[in-house]
Amino acid sequence: MDCIFCDIIAGKSEAEILFENENVISFLDIRPVNYGHTLVITKKHYENFQSVPPDDLTHLMKATQLLASAVVKGVNADGFNLIVNSGKAAGQTIFHFHFHIIPRYYNDFRFKPDFKTYSEGSKKEIADKIKIEINKKKDSFYG
Amino acid sequence: MDCIFCDIIAGKSEAEILFENENVISFLDIRPVNYGHTLVITKKHYENFQSVPPDDLTHLMKATQLLASAVVKGVNADGFNLIVNSGKAAGQTIFHFHFHIIPRYYNDFRFKPDFKTYSEGSKKEIADKIKIEINKKKDSFYG
Repeated sequence: MDCIFCDIIAGKSEAEILFENENVISFLDIRPVNYGHTLVITKKHYENFQSVPPDDLTHLMKATQLLASAVVKGVNADGFNLIVNSGKAAGQTIFHFHFHIIPRYYNDFRFKPDFKTYSEGSKKEIADKIKIEINKKKDSFYG
Repeated sequence: MDCIFCDIIAGKSEAEILFENENVISFLDIRPVNYGHTLVITKKHYENFQSVPPDDLTHLMKATQLLASAVVKGVNADGFNLIVNSGKAAGQTIFHFHFHIIPRYYNDFRFKPDFKTYSEGSKKEIADKIKIEINKKKDSFYG
């Protein structure tokens, strides 16, 4: 399997590594939105967010909490975005699941999305469609 | 404490609730980037990502995994972004920690950031600053 992140973990590709333990590793994104833009990944290769099992997700979140604070302080930022791009349509380019920690500043350019509004009744209609899908899967999560 | 999310949890404010258990609740964002834009929160009020204790974070992530799949299927999306805005500078407006699940489509408008490049040596310099902050806090996480 060809995966740049697995190569970094294996020491076959260079990265500016910030943190590493048995389960996770973190390094600077080489294409930063802001300087200090950091990636946090599990050492095991999982393609996407939903496929990370509970234990590894717990390890990942713990490290991400530590790293988010460290990145903000390290680059003297005012805040941060934590972002997952899941699927090509969402901008995912490397299919080894990763969190982006992006430092943000008050004078920073920020994405202002073009917010939509729900028409009468459409909110409930969409909620119902999602709830059907939740109910299909709920037992495998909480059964 | 004045918190719209705590009011939703208490049943004092309306929301299109998608999922609820003892620890977490999820509902549609009333200002959706795309239809089906969903928020997932802990019932306990934590201001930001770093202040969520491990147990509640585990509950939150589990529900978020379930919900991300359900949202994508429910609105027939091609992918999703999972986003945390932490701090005003990052776009946080409600200081009760929450994940955004934003459904995405291939023909969707997507934010194309103006990526920066690291000058010679600056990558290591920034990494070193972050590593100093990691080392300050590491013992309280992994000690």
